[in-house]
Amino acid sequence: MRRATAKRGIRLRKGNGPARARENPAEKIDYGPLQDWIGFNLRMAQDASFQAFSRQSKEIGFKPGRFAALTLIGRNPGICQTALSRANGRDKSTLTPLLNDLVRRRLVRRARTENDRRTYRLALTATGEQLLSQLTACARAHERKLDAVIGPRERIRFLRILRRLAAALE
Amino acid sequence: MRRATAKRGIRLRKGNGPARARENPAEKIDYGPLQDWIGFNLRMAQDASFQAFSRQSKEIGFKPGRFAALTLIGRNPGICQTALSRANGRDKSTLTPLLNDLVRRRLVRRARTENDRRTYRLALTATGEQLLSQLTACARAHERKLDAVIGPRERIRFLRILRRLAAALE
Repeated sequence: MRRATAKRGIRLRKGNGPARARENPAEKIDYGPLQDWIGFNLRMAQDASFQAFSRQSKEIGFKPGRFAALTLIGRNPGICQTALSRANGRDKSTLTPLLNDLVRRRLVRRARTENDRRTYRLALTATGEQLLSQLTACARAHERKLDAVIGPRERIRFLRILRRLAAALE
Repeated sequence: MRRATAKRGIRLRKGNGPARARENPAEKIDYGPLQDWIGFNLRMAQDASFQAFSRQSKEIGFKPGRFAALTLIGRNPGICQTALSRANGRDKSTLTPLLNDLVRRRLVRRARTENDRRTYRLALTATGEQLLSQLTACARAHERKLDAVIGPRERIRFLRILRRLAAALE
């Protein structure tokens, strides 16, 4: 039905399309070139992984996008915002609100350095460390799921390509 | 220096840390378990790919997150929002503002169906189609870069794992 509509127009027929679309969730979608593109499939895999981790970490009341930042701060106490942004692959405009949130929730302490008022140094609070250890357990469980999907034979090769992509496109 | 700071505290020494951090961008970061986790490396690869595509598509004045939606609407004229959300791997709360933006910029037309006022049908405008063809050329160039990094021998296997992840974690 869908493929038969005029290319430029939306033709709506009474009692047809929408109900059918809802009744048949497997309705055939034409993905065009996206079907075989790495970019789109990389994004879909990342979205799915993120959503799956979200469902788990929400139970501890935490947004998954903050987990990597928390780990990096926990592992590198005193890290400055610039180094964190570089290590975490996010630009400053994304990182600043994220850090504001972590500080507001008393998970991270932020201190200006004496000799350079523009630079912050970051560290976890005791609460932050507790939460990080809960989240790490949660992330480990998530990783085991990902590993099970990928399989041990493919894992190393897959990881190597992901790293090559991150490094080459920077 | 960083590894020598107390685990719980931020010790700031005058004239030391921050300047050094900026002078040495390769300063050693401890990634902890993130280093070898699929989840983190998947996100870093996706971020890098997204940023690289952003740089190209910004030249045509377009946010890259909208490209897949535009392609799917272009390929499936009359598609409803629910089917688009499913095909594009995004939930409705993310898709609605994205579609509002596309409609406001007159790239997409949205029409309610007569028999169900809650359902929208979507199609590209002529301007939307023009922009989509520019963006597709841009995305093809981006794909060639990704392919060059991955290599033709690894490509099929890599794509297969990405698809398996997206399907298994849904």
